[in-house]
Amino acid sequence: MKASQFLLATLKESPADAQTISHKLMLRSGMIRQLGSGLYHWLPLGLKVMRKVEAIVREEMSSIDCLEMLMPVVHPADIWQESGRWEDFGPELLKITDRHGRDACIAPTHEDAITSLMRNELNSYKQLPATFYQIQTKFRDETRPRAGIMRAREFIMKDAYSFHADTESLKKTYEQFFDAYHRIFNRLGLEFRAALADTGSIGGDLSHEFHVIAESGEDKIAISNESNYIANIELAESVTSIKRPAANAEMKLVDTPDKRTINDVCEFLGTTNDTSVKALFVKGSKEDNPLIALMLRGDHELNELKAEKHPLIFSPLTFANEEDIAKAMKCPIGYLGPVNTDIPVIADRHAAVMSDFSCGANQEGKHFINVNWLRDCAEPEVFDLRLVQEGDASPDGKGTLKFTRGIEVGHIFQLGDIYSKKMSADILNENGKSTPMQMGCYGLGISRVVAAAIEQHHDDKGITWPASLAPFDIALIPINMKKSQRLQLAAQALYEKLQALGYDVFFDDRKERAGFMFADAELIGIPHRLVISDKGLDTNEIEYKHRKDADSTNVSLEKLEGFLKERRG
Amino acid sequence: MKASQFLLATLKESPADAQTISHKLMLRSGMIRQLGSGLYHWLPLGLKVMRKVEAIVREEMSSIDCLEMLMPVVHPADIWQESGRWEDFGPELLKITDRHGRDACIAPTHEDAITSLMRNELNSYKQLPATFYQIQTKFRDETRPRAGIMRAREFIMKDAYSFHADTESLKKTYEQFFDAYHRIFNRLGLEFRAALADTGSIGGDLSHEFHVIAESGEDKIAISNESNYIANIELAESVTSIKRPAANAEMKLVDTPDKRTINDVCEFLGTTNDTSVKALFVKGSKEDNPLIALMLRGDHELNELKAEKHPLIFSPLTFANEEDIAKAMKCPIGYLGPVNTDIPVIADRHAAVMSDFSCGANQEGKHFINVNWLRDCAEPEVFDLRLVQEGDASPDGKGTLKFTRGIEVGHIFQLGDIYSKKMSADILNENGKSTPMQMGCYGLGISRVVAAAIEQHHDDKGITWPASLAPFDIALIPINMKKSQRLQLAAQALYEKLQALGYDVFFDDRKERAGFMFADAELIGIPHRLVISDKGLDTNEIEYKHRKDADSTNVSLEKLEGFLKERRG
Repeated sequence: MKASQFLLATLKESPADAQTISHKLMLRSGMIRQLGSGLYHWLPLGLKVMRKVEAIVREEMSSIDCLEMLMPVVHPADIWQESGRWEDFGPELLKITDRHGRDACIAPTHEDAITSLMRNELNSYKQLPATFYQIQTKFRDETRPRAGIMRAREFIMKDAYSFHADTESLKKTYEQFFDAYHRIFNRLGLEFRAALADTGSIGGDLSHEFHVIAESGEDKIAISNESNYIANIELAESVTSIKRPAANAEMKLVDTPDKRTINDVCEFLGTTNDTSVKALFVKGSKEDNPLIALMLRGDHELNELKAEKHPLIFSPLTFANEEDIAKAMKCPIGYLGPVNTDIPVIADRHAAVMSDFSCGANQEGKHFINVNWLRDCAEPEVFDLRLVQEGDASPDGKGTLKFTRGIEVGHIFQLGDIYSKKMSADILNENGKSTPMQMGCYGLGISRVVAAAIEQHHDDKGITWPASLAPFDIALIPINMKKSQRLQLAAQALYEKLQALGYDVFFDDRKERAGFMFADAELIGIPHRLVISDKGLDTNEIEYKHRKDADSTNVSLEKLEGFLKERRG
Repeated sequence: MKASQFLLATLKESPADAQTISHKLMLRSGMIRQLGSGLYHWLPLGLKVMRKVEAIVREEMSSIDCLEMLMPVVHPADIWQESGRWEDFGPELLKITDRHGRDACIAPTHEDAITSLMRNELNSYKQLPATFYQIQTKFRDETRPRAGIMRAREFIMKDAYSFHADTESLKKTYEQFFDAYHRIFNRLGLEFRAALADTGSIGGDLSHEFHVIAESGEDKIAISNESNYIANIELAESVTSIKRPAANAEMKLVDTPDKRTINDVCEFLGTTNDTSVKALFVKGSKEDNPLIALMLRGDHELNELKAEKHPLIFSPLTFANEEDIAKAMKCPIGYLGPVNTDIPVIADRHAAVMSDFSCGANQEGKHFINVNWLRDCAEPEVFDLRLVQEGDASPDGKGTLKFTRGIEVGHIFQLGDIYSKKMSADILNENGKSTPMQMGCYGLGISRVVAAAIEQHHDDKGITWPASLAPFDIALIPINMKKSQRLQLAAQALYEKLQALGYDVFFDDRKERAGFMFADAELIGIPHRLVISDKGLDTNEIEYKHRKDADSTNVSLEKLEGFLKERRG
């Protein structure tokens, strides 16, 4: 492509409203332009990059026998009402009314649509497993669109859906997708991790998020410093290898007047947080146990998402109010503990391995010291209740946890039968019995990957694309070509030769200063730069520089082909 | 692709609600399914065909240096308000309100969006001409969606836009698109014609529609029986090679009491329609001439679209009311004519070459006979006012006109500066003067082409795709494969060999009867069919049949490669 035939829309300055690196660089390099809040044009340069993501995704979907199809952007309300999401999805579902007054929406995701389609097309276990994907425009009416493409309202997704006769088949296909996603992000040249994730508004039994690691990411993730372990911080397991030490001293009641916070109590007792147990009372899920007492080590923080997964605990997690606690415990908050109570007690793993700890005495103004489980109170049920902290042991036993940030670019789910049950998507199984299909869904943010790649690959001059994503392979830059016919002919001949060798060449034929053209090629992030000049032609040489090289090298024109092949890798 | 890995969703019967051939066959072959009114899923088979259309369109757009980009589906209202189309477009523009109460729409076309974008990106004649296209989902809220994909609400378009410093450049690019469209439809294997068209709601100076010829088409078109001439019937030029004969008789006033229609008058006078001239009075466009008299041969019909293009005639064409005519002519309707009037007279070409004709005398109850232009009344201004009829001479001088039907699959426009003026899309021209850009726009209905191709290529067994559009090249059908391991191995080996030769093979590995598999392959429209059987293996032969062949041929396995190459052409 010659610059004169291309829309090169580079900007010297970042528009004032762009905050994130990728937003700034996508605007500055001329990849995108804003049309409205959360709505972006993809200029030719940006689309070229996005098409590379799409091509790799298509190849990998094909490799696992996933068939491409295309569903509508606009959906009638009825399928969303059937799945229950017309009300549940929230205001990000942009509802519309057509000219006949019928309700419809612009689809943010397609579980409802494909379930309504496939319940008619798939009828027997013989047709299963069957998997389908589409690459398509989606819309989420974000309340505050931001960071350009990263959190736009309109975006491009690859969404895939799988259908199964049983959960074994679902698990097998889920693993194929899990592996295909690894291949996709590896081929894209991105540093990434797959993390166990919460199933959120999509629902289902198991899900993984794929995060591109970048300090500017939205999501806080915990990774091991010595292994591949990663988890969303809120879901990272908290483990302990400590065995509970034997009791050492007698339990003793002490006055702790007006000391209601854990810190005040410990200071007063002359101990530290990590030798005391704090009690948190939450609403129970069963009528028999309207209150549940959670016990954590004094310096630890409750992870609400973990707690609400316990069958005895009401979900969403709800703290008990002071009145209910006072009524049940005959004691105000601040003096609560596991001793002398018939409320169910659930202790975090770290609290359960403590001995000789201090805690509230369930009497106003009093605490116990030297309390020991089993000896002084019931042996508690043990559950992982705690938010992990940096420096914790990694749950896989290798190294310690480090917190970083990630950009979620993929999310895969084992949906099970939540949609197929609601929408009667049944098949006849091997025994001739009608049964709801098992389903999986597999999202990948095509447009988001482009932005995430920039967050991970940039320097002060612009974008430093991985080779697989670069919009062009080579920037061919002639110096003062206008004045020299010899140079014009040589540059044109080289341009054609490189194209014939299969390189996508950006030939900067503009009448601009060399420095200006260099800056554009660096901003855009073209991996290989070739500078051709009259001076070079005199000695039959061309100047080469990789986008990440500090300095340029002279290469003889005869050796260029082999040299490029080697540098391209 | 093996049938067992594909979603083959063929139907024996056409769904009752499908009326047109293409709608029926797209449902029956399993290309599409309906989600809601005018909303369709593209199943894997249908999408495969649509992707072939897209690939050819992309190649031809690239060949004329048209750059691909991608604009949003959802547009904020402001750009549509700026162009004036927020109100003017009509109810097909689906307006929506987002969660913040802001007006927006789902775009049916992108002139407004690209003008708002490019007025910022293009600033100088040096950047021009510049052309851009996208292939994208569009939405028109049709009041009565019908005929499946043909008139769906959501559809896929290729829309291109060009920007120019002057009209010469616009005309040159317009011609490049005109030629590229010819190449596209030729490569798609479709019989088509390009017709001069009305610019309609898009506006502009000149436009052509591209029609796929099919009896089931929506649009009535006139084509020559001996040349490539085609026009929308309403725009086809009416020509005459007749020279006006010399006057033969004296003009005479005759009483025609109560004869007010042309037929009554002619019958009364003992003449025929084609020897009389009828007068139609319409509203003028200038204050000086509030009425204009149009003269047509008695048996000819006025073409209102043609008439309103005359500068003296008010647009949209408005017939004068009886009162105004009576006041100006002192004579009621039924007795009007070109003699003795100072109202401007415009005669159709066919009326202007008449002599010795009869016409109203501008006196109640009277007509003239043997009237001659110039001798008895002023020589009229001559203009093409008439609706063509079948059997008329073709305007290009070759053959006569025949009426048929077409499906509009493309429409290209010379927009001129209508959008750039309204939206201030100016550039600096060569003289350093700010001037609105000249624009062109070029639509091509990607999804519609698929349906139109079926309307043109089908028989009683199903679709008979042109090779360029067929979802698979070859249907490989084994007979009773389940029982024969030899056949299983041979079929699999042939499947792999054909794929290695570059064919897209549909290997029907289902355990179905041969006739059932044949019917599916014919319905889907796979061009080449190979039947492999144990019997054939005995003699080292395979059975071949083209979709359009009446009978099959046996081909030796050794010669198959060359045979297929030849048949493929």
